[in-house]
Amino acid sequence: MEKTIKIDLRSDTVTSPSEEMREAIYKAKVGDHGYGEDETTVELEEYCAKYFGKEAGLFMASGTMSDQVSIRCWTQAGDEIILDGSYHINYFQAGPSTDLGKILLNTCHSKDGVLRVEDIEKAICNKIRGNLFSRPALISLENTINGYGGTIFPIENLKEVYSFAQKQGIPLHMDGERFLNACIATNIPVKEYALYTDSISTSFSKGLGAPFGSIIMGSKNFIEKAKKYRRWYGGSLHQSGFMAAAALFAIKNNVQRLEVDHHNAKLLGSLLKSSKYLNINLETVQTNMVMLDTRDIGLTAKEFVSLCEKKGVFLYPWHTYTVRAVTHLGISEKDVCLAASKIREVCEGITKRKVG
Amino acid sequence: MEKTIKIDLRSDTVTSPSEEMREAIYKAKVGDHGYGEDETTVELEEYCAKYFGKEAGLFMASGTMSDQVSIRCWTQAGDEIILDGSYHINYFQAGPSTDLGKILLNTCHSKDGVLRVEDIEKAICNKIRGNLFSRPALISLENTINGYGGTIFPIENLKEVYSFAQKQGIPLHMDGERFLNACIATNIPVKEYALYTDSISTSFSKGLGAPFGSIIMGSKNFIEKAKKYRRWYGGSLHQSGFMAAAALFAIKNNVQRLEVDHHNAKLLGSLLKSSKYLNINLETVQTNMVMLDTRDIGLTAKEFVSLCEKKGVFLYPWHTYTVRAVTHLGISEKDVCLAASKIREVCEGITKRKVG
Amino acid sequence: MEKTIKIDLRSDTVTSPSEEMREAIYKAKVGDHGYGEDETTVELEEYCAKYFGKEAGLFMASGTMSDQVSIRCWTQAGDEIILDGSYHINYFQAGPSTDLGKILLNTCHSKDGVLRVEDIEKAICNKIRGNLFSRPALISLENTINGYGGTIFPIENLKEVYSFAQKQGIPLHMDGERFLNACIATNIPVKEYALYTDSISTSFSKGLGAPFGSIIMGSKNFIEKAKKYRRWYGGSLHQSGFMAAAALFAIKNNVQRLEVDHHNAKLLGSLLKSSKYLNINLETVQTNMVMLDTRDIGLTAKEFVSLCEKKGVFLYPWHTYTVRAVTHLGISEKDVCLAASKIREVCEGITKRKVG
Amino acid sequence: MEKTIKIDLRSDTVTSPSEEMREAIYKAKVGDHGYGEDETTVELEEYCAKYFGKEAGLFMASGTMSDQVSIRCWTQAGDEIILDGSYHINYFQAGPSTDLGKILLNTCHSKDGVLRVEDIEKAICNKIRGNLFSRPALISLENTINGYGGTIFPIENLKEVYSFAQKQGIPLHMDGERFLNACIATNIPVKEYALYTDSISTSFSKGLGAPFGSIIMGSKNFIEKAKKYRRWYGGSLHQSGFMAAAALFAIKNNVQRLEVDHHNAKLLGSLLKSSKYLNINLETVQTNMVMLDTRDIGLTAKEFVSLCEKKGVFLYPWHTYTVRAVTHLGISEKDVCLAASKIREVCEGITKRKVG
Repeated sequence: MEKTIKIDLRSDTVTSPSEEMREAIYKAKVGDHGYGEDETTVELEEYCAKYFGKEAGLFMASGTMSDQVSIRCWTQAGDEIILDGSYHINYFQAGPSTDLGKILLNTCHSKDGVLRVEDIEKAICNKIRGNLFSRPALISLENTINGYGGTIFPIENLKEVYSFAQKQGIPLHMDGERFLNACIATNIPVKEYALYTDSISTSFSKGLGAPFGSIIMGSKNFIEKAKKYRRWYGGSLHQSGFMAAAALFAIKNNVQRLEVDHHNAKLLGSLLKSSKYLNINLETVQTNMVMLDTRDIGLTAKEFVSLCEKKGVFLYPWHTYTVRAVTHLGISEKDVCLAASKIREVCEGITKRKVG
Repeated sequence: MEKTIKIDLRSDTVTSPSEEMREAIYKAKVGDHGYGEDETTVELEEYCAKYFGKEAGLFMASGTMSDQVSIRCWTQAGDEIILDGSYHINYFQAGPSTDLGKILLNTCHSKDGVLRVEDIEKAICNKIRGNLFSRPALISLENTINGYGGTIFPIENLKEVYSFAQKQGIPLHMDGERFLNACIATNIPVKEYALYTDSISTSFSKGLGAPFGSIIMGSKNFIEKAKKYRRWYGGSLHQSGFMAAAALFAIKNNVQRLEVDHHNAKLLGSLLKSSKYLNINLETVQTNMVMLDTRDIGLTAKEFVSLCEKKGVFLYPWHTYTVRAVTHLGISEKDVCLAASKIREVCEGITKRKVG
Repeated sequence: MEKTIKIDLRSDTVTSPSEEMREAIYKAKVGDHGYGEDETTVELEEYCAKYFGKEAGLFMASGTMSDQVSIRCWTQAGDEIILDGSYHINYFQAGPSTDLGKILLNTCHSKDGVLRVEDIEKAICNKIRGNLFSRPALISLENTINGYGGTIFPIENLKEVYSFAQKQGIPLHMDGERFLNACIATNIPVKEYALYTDSISTSFSKGLGAPFGSIIMGSKNFIEKAKKYRRWYGGSLHQSGFMAAAALFAIKNNVQRLEVDHHNAKLLGSLLKSSKYLNINLETVQTNMVMLDTRDIGLTAKEFVSLCEKKGVFLYPWHTYTVRAVTHLGISEKDVCLAASKIREVCEGITKRKVG
Repeated sequence: MEKTIKIDLRSDTVTSPSEEMREAIYKAKVGDHGYGEDETTVELEEYCAKYFGKEAGLFMASGTMSDQVSIRCWTQAGDEIILDGSYHINYFQAGPSTDLGKILLNTCHSKDGVLRVEDIEKAICNKIRGNLFSRPALISLENTINGYGGTIFPIENLKEVYSFAQKQGIPLHMDGERFLNACIATNIPVKEYALYTDSISTSFSKGLGAPFGSIIMGSKNFIEKAKKYRRWYGGSLHQSGFMAAAALFAIKNNVQRLEVDHHNAKLLGSLLKSSKYLNINLETVQTNMVMLDTRDIGLTAKEFVSLCEKKGVFLYPWHTYTVRAVTHLGISEKDVCLAASKIREVCEGITKRKVG
């Protein structure tokens, strides 16, 4: 029965924890982290710091909190962050970045979200500088790049930007909520990739499948500062160990399996591309996302998404004519094939209506 | 063996969830609440709203987030909040209230934390008013009152303040992290007590024993506004249902048993009072806290706490010469007796040293 | 003697008041405007409001204060302003706009600073919208457009943008520091031009030649709000009448003569263009500015400006390779000819050095 | 004729500049201080810095701007300022201090506005401290103390507080808008008195009689920082030399004559005291103010002020039952006698009405 189909490709945040992860949560050793005594949280922070090759880590309630707290550690009110306009910090977090962060989002409009040194130089140069004016205080990158379909910020570009940042004395923050997808897709060791960042976040609730939570990592100094702001933003949790246990399970067990998601995304992309209804750029299918352009079938993203939902396939209307499909641990190869077929049906229906 | 004693009276936030609560977490039905689809969270919010007699509720990661988000819903930058200087919003949250809230904490210095209409009138009158100046935009109360030993904000006083607030057109927020302790201790129905507030928060991680989390309740309009700020502060969680399940279990099962904590606090107070070493005002032992004054034994709170820790009794140095002991679901009558005896030993040791 | 030449074309803010203006200042009737009793200030505000066809006006210490206070009247922390990246509010005021204004500068990068409806639609569409996200709360335009050489924001475009803004329910602020230059150059009556704005500022210290000061005009409600913020930003002055007298003299006597500045700018542009050393777009010489491109002579703007200064001609290095020359009431036709000749000498010197 | 009487004792800000000061304004040498080229402003800043024994000074549009910019130079968002609740920074500037300054006003409620070391220690101790919490970042004093009747902050107390501040590593700011009144009244050299401050402001528009303007003085570092914030708050003026000329005239000519104001205030106090209608504490008449308590005659301050105005005597209703009278260069001994007589008439009228 069609009604029972539900393939949720809106985001990799929709995953429901596995039985084993639930058990890890159930058995978590916890303590009151208001006093720094939750041992699972401490273990998670140390594990992740080591995993990413940083001095220290701090568990956060959400990716937004990771970003916002990092911004506060690197900037003062009136300072400026250079980033691409498509990045989460601007696209979804424009409100908190200015209301709470009180900083200027100096947004580049790159063609692919991969900021080059010349983009950043241009951004620095796009307003007057000097002691009386706003100061470029942080370069913020994203990997993988959500707004361009989960594409990879190549390590070579990262090295160049980081080297430039170092010369300018500007710290580099990496919004790495899906950073491990980039590592798996490129086969570059996490520590090597993370070397070219001054602070980095990563999410446990996206491809890794934990209920919620994120972590920021960097120098001990950075993390000390971050503790204050985490508390100020309301992110100081008592027995955080339950969620830390899920996160720890996730990073220990679910990293390598991101390969499966990447494979499934590629499969989905190919299947849809071959049906020729939707404009899809397979080159951008680098990790666990596929971006569909709905202009060719004459619908907005929202209209198209709504039609697909009726067939049991859930997609995310990213932008006016752009729809995002994301694979994750709740999606099998079979799901992908079925979703592709249902989406094709939707396209066919539209075309018929037009012809008719 | 003395070493194995650990009686933790620092706070009621130190409790570790019971087996049943762990099971409730384990079995939680969850969904992605980024899309508003976590049914346990929805259930919790509806349950609490009904329980407190408010239109709607919103689950929060922490009590600090509950307070900070509520402040934002009622005020604009440069506005003024009238509250007692001992309240959590000033005592612990002065940083976020001004950095993120951008409001003035107009603090009264009442003798007992129970703000009277005349205190508030004086606070309104303590600076120049008019269109060009800061505006008193919110009255914020606390119940029970942490800084005065978990004392109760009497409903009669609350009614008077609320009636005054209504006349002035100033909303009243209740920081009710331990509000249910007040309800249990006074036997006043929750809904009746909460009637005299425009917004109210309550904690799941204190006497109720959940790992973490808090909720704010108020009108639908208030909660709609709060959703934005919760997201901005980084409190929008994906599968929040695990923690909501713990909270739901807590509010369904652990409210009535606060009586036990209150009984134990009174017992602890009496035992310590009878030993005559420490100045204790039993009149303020109204819920689950006992405040000890260390001046008579010539030690600071920190010094005294440190000596007690060596005997296995953990207390919280609230202020220079004030020590707080809090009972909770991890503390039995037997624990209380043992703690009292150990604290007496510490006092005796000090007195001997002095005499010697 | 060459040493005595000083032709200052850096800005129209460099003008020193005329003898008559000094006399107007000297004789000003003043009162304490802390109590709203400075009659010259009141006269100025009423005169200007009428002149621009608005309900009320408010005298400000500077153009920056006019902009910053206007922003506060139309927005709340976390809101968004749509404007061109070249506008003063972003180019020079990025610091205060974010530190004090706490808003997002959503900058368009138009080709000429004339924002079209499609630019604004794109800006609204360049991030996620909805109740949980940053809200486009203000469209801010500039006329004349400083960053593009004092070009005119055509009334036809303004009408279209204003009509769009009205439909969207978004107010339109006009940073009109040099708005009267646009009126004189186009021969459009001030009131007609200003009709398509919800608030508008204008400067007395630029082409009009007063020492300092600016004014904002709009509805009575807008001005009432602005009074509070003017005071908060430190712009509540006591005997402001001295400076208001200069401003009043300026707007009564110096508007029509902006024609002379426009004529002189055109003359300067033509003279420099005909010497063929510098790339000059005469189409953008619409009011009192000329923009010189220094790339063809292989110098940065700063290097070129420095060489010209040695010849007694002072210019402003606007951007890396862009130099700005501004005519004003301290510059005669003769000055323009001399300046053009000196600038040519500098260019010749550079070319010779290169050839040699 | 009674109607022609107007004796304005509301504030020392109401003074209209003398003929000589108007001439100084008229003849001012000015330049564009946007480029740092206004020589009168430079002269004023250097003159004042030397006069107060500080490294550098910065001319400000208003006392509020002096305070707000100083706050920004010493603090970061979320930091804390310790001051008396009666000081201008809290009493009048609560809005900007929190909206723009984003800091906590930790207000002491001293009996006389003279903060003692123990008041400050108590304020530091009145909330939890540590790396995760708000930090006491500035001690801000006021001299003379407006809210207590222009009383003097004694140098001995200042020395003690400064010594304490130094030990704690907390800077001390002096809101010295009427600091020169304190110097004249005590005969303590300005430089000696100012020695015990890290930054200090003084007003030109109060007892000194200039139209408007204030200055902050401190280390070169402090002033460099302040330049940025002055610009951000909209206080960067072009030909500021006109107002700087008035200020320079004021500080060169009008300091010693503050003695006259002090004499006149004492005379007014004695005359009113001897009429026995109003409660006046002559001990607080230390400089140019007299505070009248209206409780004994059964009127609020506003009611009393309103009656006096009908007799041509203008007073300021400072607080519910407190009226302020201020002497200044527009008030002669004769004016004082006439004002005292008119005020007595008002009091007699009230008493009669009551008796009748």
